[in-house]
Amino acid sequence: MDAKELYKKMGGEIKEFNKFSGDVDIGYRIEYQKRVAEVDIDFFGLVSGDFSPVHFNDDVASKTRFKGRVAHGILTTSFVSAALARMPGLVIILETYFRYTAPVRIGDTVKVEGVVKEADQAKKRYKLDIICSVEGRKVLEGWTSIVIW
Amino acid sequence: MDAKELYKKMGGEIKEFNKFSGDVDIGYRIEYQKRVAEVDIDFFGLVSGDFSPVHFNDDVASKTRFKGRVAHGILTTSFVSAALARMPGLVIILETYFRYTAPVRIGDTVKVEGVVKEADQAKKRYKLDIICSVEGRKVLEGWTSIVIW
Repeated sequence: MDAKELYKKMGGEIKEFNKFSGDVDIGYRIEYQKRVAEVDIDFFGLVSGDFSPVHFNDDVASKTRFKGRVAHGILTTSFVSAALARMPGLVIILETYFRYTAPVRIGDTVKVEGVVKEADQAKKRYKLDIICSVEGRKVLEGWTSIVIW
Repeated sequence: MDAKELYKKMGGEIKEFNKFSGDVDIGYRIEYQKRVAEVDIDFFGLVSGDFSPVHFNDDVASKTRFKGRVAHGILTTSFVSAALARMPGLVIILETYFRYTAPVRIGDTVKVEGVVKEADQAKKRYKLDIICSVEGRKVLEGWTSIVIW
């Protein structure tokens, strides 16, 4: 069995890598959604080595103010990476600032929304404001700067 | 086959979740290392949906100034999450600022180093400066603020 097969079998959402169209400039908007499955937390734990009980142990997590297991914050951030990668061209992330404002749980679908706020067309460098939300509740906000090759 | 078994079989480095000791205060240092294997890029792609050719396509990536495939920047960031999670107590990430300064490739071992720069012991909130490096070459720098429950 390969990774994709196992991921699918364990309930992960396989996303197509569809690129966004249009010309990137101030006001350019991106949107991307992905559902968080238990397999995402398992895979992210293995990749990172972050096996914190707040992500993996129901007993410990249920006694916190989260009242249950939550996804890694950086897992939500990985969806931002996927959204940016869908912009036209080859996107390289230079800088990120993110604030984690609410927990994301197994079964939640996270929506990433971004809008270009600054554009240097000569250098193809752009700054985007980013918000991630689950059913209208903001879970992450911040900004990122990228270069497009 | 489960995720851990497949990950190991595909060459991923399984990390023990060993907690750091000591009292967190200004000057407290953390260090964590993990090797990036091809399976990490595969797993991270599935979790995030970021299948950018700069991570997955040798032909495309070799024609960029990276001259070959590189790991996702946020994959390196996930190692920061793992380092923070090893601090005493239950660590919740509130805020992050990171600058990606050089590429990370398959086979690279990334070292995360952090040091507490600000401490609010009443609220158990801390700010850490973070550097990630590969054989002494800096690949990420920035800071994070956390709360410990």
